[in-house]
Order: sequence, then C-alpha cells, then structure tokens
Amino acid sequence: MLDWEQIFATRSSRMRASEIRELLKLLDQPDIISFAGGIPDPALFPDAAFKEAYSDIFSSAQVGSALQYSVSEGYKPLREWIARDVAKIGIDCTPDNVFITSGSQQALDYLGKLFLSPKDTALVTWPTYLGALSAFNAYEPSYDKLSLNGNRTPEAYRETAAKAGGSVKFAYLSSDFSNPTGETVDRAGREKLLQLADELDIAILEDAAYQHLRYDGEAIPPIMALDIARNGGDIEKTRTIYSGSFSKTLAPGLRVGFVIAAMPVIRKLVLMKQAADLHSSTINQIAIEHVASRGFDAQVAKIRSVYSKRRDAMLAAMDRYMPKNASWTRPEGGMFVWVTLPEGIDGAELLAKSIATEKVAFVPGKAFYADGSNANTLRMSFSCASEAMIEEGIKRLGRLIANAIPAAA
Amino acid sequence: MLDWEQIFATRSSRMRASEIRELLKLLDQPDIISFAGGIPDPALFPDAAFKEAYSDIFSSAQVGSALQYSVSEGYKPLREWIARDVAKIGIDCTPDNVFITSGSQQALDYLGKLFLSPKDTALVTWPTYLGALSAFNAYEPSYDKLSLNGNRTPEAYRETAAKAGGSVKFAYLSSDFSNPTGETVDRAGREKLLQLADELDIAILEDAAYQHLRYDGEAIPPIMALDIARNGGDIEKTRTIYSGSFSKTLAPGLRVGFVIAAMPVIRKLVLMKQAADLHSSTINQIAIEHVASRGFDAQVAKIRSVYSKRRDAMLAAMDRYMPKNASWTRPEGGMFVWVTLPEGIDGAELLAKSIATEKVAFVPGKAFYADGSNANTLRMSFSCASEAMIEEGIKRLGRLIANAIPAAA
Repeated sequence: MLDWEQIFATRSSRMRASEIRELLKLLDQPDIISFAGGIPDPALFPDAAFKEAYSDIFSSAQVGSALQYSVSEGYKPLREWIARDVAKIGIDCTPDNVFITSGSQQALDYLGKLFLSPKDTALVTWPTYLGALSAFNAYEPSYDKLSLNGNRTPEAYRETAAKAGGSVKFAYLSSDFSNPTGETVDRAGREKLLQLADELDIAILEDAAYQHLRYDGEAIPPIMALDIARNGGDIEKTRTIYSGSFSKTLAPGLRVGFVIAAMPVIRKLVLMKQAADLHSSTINQIAIEHVASRGFDAQVAKIRSVYSKRRDAMLAAMDRYMPKNASWTRPEGGMFVWVTLPEGIDGAELLAKSIATEKVAFVPGKAFYADGSNANTLRMSFSCASEAMIEEGIKRLGRLIANAIPAAA
Repeated sequence: MLDWEQIFATRSSRMRASEIRELLKLLDQPDIISFAGGIPDPALFPDAAFKEAYSDIFSSAQVGSALQYSVSEGYKPLREWIARDVAKIGIDCTPDNVFITSGSQQALDYLGKLFLSPKDTALVTWPTYLGALSAFNAYEPSYDKLSLNGNRTPEAYRETAAKAGGSVKFAYLSSDFSNPTGETVDRAGREKLLQLADELDIAILEDAAYQHLRYDGEAIPPIMALDIARNGGDIEKTRTIYSGSFSKTLAPGLRVGFVIAAMPVIRKLVLMKQAADLHSSTINQIAIEHVASRGFDAQVAKIRSVYSKRRDAMLAAMDRYMPKNASWTRPEGGMFVWVTLPEGIDGAELLAKSIATEKVAFVPGKAFYADGSNANTLRMSFSCASEAMIEEGIKRLGRLIANAIPAAA
C-alpha cells in the first residue's frame, strides 16, 4: 500500500477544497435562503432552444462528426460566431484568434500552466476570483496586489517579484461586474493597466465571464478592444488575453468557453489542449453554436431583465435592513454584491450563526484574497433567489449583523 | 508587443505538434486509403441511442440540472454504472472510487500533474501511447524503459532515475491491445509488474482504453483486479490507478472517460479538477449513462463483430502481400497492428512515398518511442477501413515496402 499523502505532498500542497463547494450543497436545502452560489438560475436556461439544437444534430448528416473526435482549437462555426459577436464590442479578430475551452475555468488553468513557473508572480486584484487562485495555485506562483489606480510604480512590482524569487508574468482581472465584488474597472483604470503592462512588459489576462450581464450604465470597451485600438487595429500586436464563457448566458453544464488572443498564444494553447484533453466536447460546441446563432441576444435580454430586478431588490433591501457601519458595492451588472463589515467581524463565524438561526447563506469573503485577509467581508449573490426571498433573506441577515456589531446594535 | 516565444520558452519546450494530427487530415481526402487515425468508425456510433438519450433529458424534469454546474467527481448514476461494469472483470470498488474525466486523455494529464515534478522518472513501455508522452511531457519527467519480462532489477530502475535527478514515480502501460502495438500483457507479465511496483514502491497507471475490444483469446484480469485480489479484496490497499474511456465503445465526441483508484488518489483528482475545469459536461455524462445502461453490451458486441473482421482482413492481407523480412503483431483485439521493417528503412520517408505513389497512409512508429528511436516501425489501424479497402491498401503498401527493401525485392 502506497503512502499516497506523502507522494502527493509536494504537488498538492497548494490544493484546497473550495469553501464554495460546501456552500453549494446548501442550495439543496429548501428551507435555506441562499445568496452563496454564484451560479445562473436554471429557470432561465434556454432549454427549448437546446432541445431543438440536439434534435437537429441527430436529424442531420452532421451526427457522425458531432460524436467523433475533433480538432483541439474548436468547432470552426462556433469560433466564427464568437469572432462576429466580440467585433460588436471592439474586439476585431479572426476566427483563428479564438480558441475553445471547457469553460473559462479551463482557460485560467491553461494560462497558469503556460505562464507560471514556481516563484513567478501573478498580479491579481485584492479580492479576486477564487477559481483563478485555485487554477494558478497548481503552478506555485507568488501573488502581488494589482493596483488599478496607478499608485504603484513598475519598479515596486518588479522588486516584490524579485524578492519572491521570480518575475511578474501577468496581471489577471475581471474587468466587468467582477466575481466577487460586482465592481467594474472604468476606462481610465483600463488605460492605466495597459500602460503598466507595457512598462512591465507583461500580459494581461482579462476575464470577461460576466461581460454580457450589464443592467445599467454605459458599456466600457474591453481591455482587449482598447489594446487592439492602440495597436492600429492589429490583434497580433496586443498583450491582452481575453477569456469568455457561455456559462452565464446560455448554460454551464455544456462546459464551453473561449480565449481570444494573438496567434502565438493560441498556437501554444492548441498544443497544450491536445496533450491535456484533446478537445472540448464536439456535440456541445455544435449545440452552443446552434443556440447562439439563433437567439443569443434575446436570451441575454431575458436574463438581464430578471437579474437586474433581483439586483435592485437586493440593493433596496440592504438600504433598508443593513446596519449603517456596513458598506456594500452597487454593481451595474453581474451576479454579486460585496459587503464590508466593521473590522473584527468574522464572515465565517457569521455564516455559521446565519445558517443556524436565520437560515440564510452567503460566502465569507476571505477566500477571495490571495493572503486570506479581510475576514470582515461577504459575497452575496442575487442570481438564484426571487425578489421576495431576497427581501426576506436580507432582512434576516441585517438583523443578525446588527446584533453582531455592538456599535450598531 | 510581447515576445511570446521567449516568454513561453521554458514552459513549452516539451510541447510538440502531434504528427498524428496532420495524418488525421488525410482521412478527409477520399482517394487516400488511411490506416493512420486510431479512431472509431463513425458508422458504428449508436446514434439512435444517443438521440433518444438527449431527447429524454429534455423531456424530463432533469433538464435544469443537465444544463447546470455539477460536482467535480462526476454524475453519480454514471459512477454507479461504471462500478457495476468493472465488477464483472474483477474490479471490486464503490462508486466513490470512480472519478469522471473528459476522456482518458485528461486522466493522463491529471495523473502526470499529480505525480511528476521535473526530473522525476516515468516508466513506460518502448513503444508507448504517444498521447501519454504528450500529457506527461508538460511536467518535464525523464522516461525509462519498462521491462515486462522481469529482466531488470529494481536497483537498475532506481539508479537510472537517480542519474536523471529524481526518483521513479510510476509505471504507465496499456495492458490490453495497446496503442500502438496491439499487444496484450499476459497474466505472468501483470504479476511481475505488480511485484516490481511493490519493490520500487510506486504506482501503476493502467490504461484500459481498449479493454472492451477483445475479438478472440481469453480475457486476462486487469492489473487493478489482480492488485485488489492480492490485497484481500480491498481497493484501498492497491497501488494501481485504472483509467477507462467511452471513446472507443460509445463515442469520443462527448469526452467522457474515468479513473478508478483508492480514495486518497480520487480525493486529489477531485480537487485538481475543481481548479482545472470544474467538472466534465453534465449533460454528456447523463447521456452516456443513459446509453450505457440501456445497451452497452449490445453496442460492444456490434463493434467487436465489425472490427474483428477488419483485423482478420488486415492480417490475411499482410500474410499475402508483405515481404518476408517484415514482421508484425497479431493482436487479439483493439485497433492496431504494429509492423517492424528491417533496420535502415525509415517509416516517415516510406509514408511520404506511400501517400505520393500508393495513396495509402499509416503512422510512422518512432513518435511512439520516448527517445524517438526505431524509425523502422509503422502503426497500422484497421478500425476505419472496409475489408475491401484493407485488402487493396495492404497490397499497395506491401509492393512499396518490397521495393524499398533490397533483400526482399
């Protein structure tokens, strides 16, 4: 019998079970009001469109190729559809600049694998997407705090990376309605980041998983679009790597996402995928293209309409029920509101109490910090609860928090 | 503009484009008789069963969960079906010992990632599955030649690994009808390997992608089954990690495979998958379970019947048309016959001539050797050609080879 734990010690020291995983199980308990899972509401899935898509595939001559092995870069009509769709937001690229992944989580894993050697530095926002930390952790980097207001010099980043034993390899961020804060980087912040990336000569990984979910305010061009524009329209001269997903707009269960980048990046990703899982599901790529090309915009309009009302309900309930010394973000889109409580309040302890006495779930915020700091924060998702449940859940949570904060009680 | 090539130099030095990828394109040329791609014949896919599976999913209450995120270990009814199926060949395990992957290629990538640090040694057969070398290469191991007849001592393996700068981490092999040789490891060889693994205290990665495709001869228990038996029926005491796939039996386009192992291995794989792509496609796992539970054995019987006749046709044609100083394997199953030509004949040069003058394709064998040796070998797949095409293709190839071998001309 092998001593597996000892064998895996080096490789897996950075792996940790996601706290979110445990929290997702709460969704199955009908008496819990859950603001925990950052997942789409299954009631909004375009099932009829997917039913037609699979049915059409099996009624056509395409069935043999839909069930067969396919190329690692992805199904060409889908890559063509994506290239046309992103052109609308200023990303001028060819279908060859588009690489299909098994969800945008796979893009993060592959990009971590491609860029990071142990001790290299990844710049991330503080907080950042928990799944990005999990993906990058496998490649043993250090993390440094990405500042989007330009108040850190390139030298400061270089010095911190050198102290960690490597160099800065990329800056990762979610530019629109980020997970976990719901915040959006404004145009000036995007331009400053491009400037910083130029000075550090590093790549920018732009995670656009929530890009289509804007409820109000004016759209800001993706960093990728700004990068293309400053390079005379030539994507081959850019340093941004853009990742997107159909998980929040169509359905996550098919596992279809994508990366858009200059050809040298795409070529490496194709080789990597060939060695790692050959290709993403052929039939699912065909089904996604089928549904997207027949009604993507209508589906996006439908989910925007529902989620925006839930966001409004959550913000209105917070205004009514949250104590004054708590603060929270006011996102223009996405699925999340980010709450900051007075220091000293621990989100994990609060969650335990909240589930026991109030039957309300959320995600404690410290999991989203590369250094596990800021225990006084909470991620609240409004995507899967009705407006009435949101009102009731925030009312209960506000009461609990008010009792937990002596000054506000 | 970033110097991507320079940035990726370290990480991607081991990546190389598969020669097979280029060869697969030949399948699209109707005038070429291809023995190149080791892929299933799409005419044998159970399309009607899959059509019904997807249709049933969309007509049931299950549709919401089929399109939603799901757990990283995989769809439970599918893991239960697999546990029941492998029990028939002596692998006594619980559904919790089964982990779903996106094809067995992903199992190889994850196991490489879990076990291998740079300079560690992986023992592989000479030749071995090209895709295993591609997957492991990302983790920068050394390779040593796995001997299945027991004529190398544990010390010899340890010394070679120490010279390479690390230690032996596992032995990888395909036990039944291997890709590329079509050969099967006999029971004595399996027992010797378990003995060697005990002495080296390493894991065995048993790749069973072709396990169901036996056409004649008696089935040999998987190494995993022998390992369980020697441990009093307790899978938790085994050192074997078994990987299987639905790609050769049902369809590869859904990307569904699996790993069976002791719980400490499964737990690490689950964490790894959560960070790497969250989970394999939910809807496809449900569809595979649907099709497998309603007619797996009948589907396997159907493809065995067709492929066994093609194997017979290829062996008969080789007996008739190949020159006497060529030799080849006589596989009891799978998709491949492995040809060894006299030394000095280069398979890659032969392929170029064969395509130009005879319109016949195959895969030069050296890609299957970790050291790129044995250029005088060829992999011939009989899975995608009719018996008549096999007869004609081998006739042409035999003529070409006879002309290329002076002594046989």
